[in-house]
Amino acid sequence: MSDLSRFAINQITTRDWSLKEAVDGYARQGAAGIGVWMDYLDAAGVNAGARIIREAGLFVPCLCTSAWVNLAERSAFDAAIAENRRRLDAAAEIGASCLVVVPGGLATGERDLQAARSRVESALEILLDHARSVGVALGLEPLHPMYAADRSCLSTFAHCLELTKKLGEGTGIVADTYHCWWDPFFAQGLREAGSEHILTFHLGDWLVPTRDVYQDRGMIGDGVIDFAFYRSVLDEIGYDGPFEIELFSKLDWWTRDGAETTRISIERCAPLVGARK
Amino acid sequence: MSDLSRFAINQITTRDWSLKEAVDGYARQGAAGIGVWMDYLDAAGVNAGARIIREAGLFVPCLCTSAWVNLAERSAFDAAIAENRRRLDAAAEIGASCLVVVPGGLATGERDLQAARSRVESALEILLDHARSVGVALGLEPLHPMYAADRSCLSTFAHCLELTKKLGEGTGIVADTYHCWWDPFFAQGLREAGSEHILTFHLGDWLVPTRDVYQDRGMIGDGVIDFAFYRSVLDEIGYDGPFEIELFSKLDWWTRDGAETTRISIERCAPLVGARK
Repeated sequence: MSDLSRFAINQITTRDWSLKEAVDGYARQGAAGIGVWMDYLDAAGVNAGARIIREAGLFVPCLCTSAWVNLAERSAFDAAIAENRRRLDAAAEIGASCLVVVPGGLATGERDLQAARSRVESALEILLDHARSVGVALGLEPLHPMYAADRSCLSTFAHCLELTKKLGEGTGIVADTYHCWWDPFFAQGLREAGSEHILTFHLGDWLVPTRDVYQDRGMIGDGVIDFAFYRSVLDEIGYDGPFEIELFSKLDWWTRDGAETTRISIERCAPLVGARK
Repeated sequence: MSDLSRFAINQITTRDWSLKEAVDGYARQGAAGIGVWMDYLDAAGVNAGARIIREAGLFVPCLCTSAWVNLAERSAFDAAIAENRRRLDAAAEIGASCLVVVPGGLATGERDLQAARSRVESALEILLDHARSVGVALGLEPLHPMYAADRSCLSTFAHCLELTKKLGEGTGIVADTYHCWWDPFFAQGLREAGSEHILTFHLGDWLVPTRDVYQDRGMIGDGVIDFAFYRSVLDEIGYDGPFEIELFSKLDWWTRDGAETTRISIERCAPLVGARK
């Protein structure tokens, strides 16, 4: 029997399923957790969604994602902060350990990436008290550098680690193989972060060739990432948190039935997600 | 009058032109240099190509690129080393300051990126004597992380800088805005490298959205990169080497006539490539 007690499926992996369908579909096949997205949760209603998840007994490693704060105009920025407080509350209500911080890239017309990064740091400082008070961590996720302009200007593990250490309690890192595998610092970064700073560990493979910049992540084993190596680094540092598959895949997995995607996700991930040895 | 004395066009920017056509086309519009690709040079013949370039009076900031060394099998690796020696000789013959090192990514079936990187380091160590003896530097180019698997496992400025400092004389860095603009360390890396370690500076813009992983680089000014900022960093460190536009653009610039691409390249780059103030 596979030990799936640490294993969650991020619901974007089965894009066409509602929250209820995803919860039922994952639980039925033995996954223990679900990574939730805000739009699906809003569609279900936060209260009702929380009940659905609780009744199925799934754990929630994260709520995806923060509202973007790449807004140069003050009132728009403030509105994004307010929306992020709402999302932290929603995360608390569904029992999510963290809100994944994907803060946007450059503002419209902006070319100053350093300014964009400073703005994100300010937003995190503003949100930190609220995050602490509701018991939901701000999960800084280094996103692949190819998303620096238009999805997240948090592009490296080193940068997120630095922010996490600076901001302290109530923040941590969401590490994702798809986003970080290329980084010469990735393994070392995991070691320097230590188990206590890693909130959840996302699994996605890098396909060769990659046919789409945004939505062509590979099923575990179909690409070139050395998952066994990263698992060994995580064991070495004593990590015993969640593993979570997360695929954006308009050319393959999103075209399949959710039950099939769930089954193969579990099949491929099971050898990687068991208890620490 | 624009000062184009430091400005070269990398010939891949006008993909459909032969070496002769590119040399003539660039010289006619006032560009002072040409970045040469090995396949065009071979098509012309190295000797004849060298004469064409010399007669036009163009400088050659680089020869692109090294032969890939992502070969686990010994005899194949050795053949790639031999081919790289031939390319160093060719670079010397056309007066190129460096051979751009794009060494390939993972070997077939390989998942160990660290092993791939060690293999590249070995290859560079092997080639170093020859590079020194013919007076052509090995130009380590950090390639965008999205190419780590299948084009170059040299993914960050920091990694290339470390290798350059370790290997010493006969090596240097080829910096490219397209590949490095996202990197929180890029500006600092340029400062730490210092003018003496930067062999040539490539210009290419990052488009939003990027429609193709490999061949959708943007004309300077059409994307989000802050070129004026990087120019100021280069001035600050006393860089007075070449600037070189290099576009892979199957959806736009490669579909246009070379003379038009040349004209607009010069128009857009002229404000960025003049003498140091």
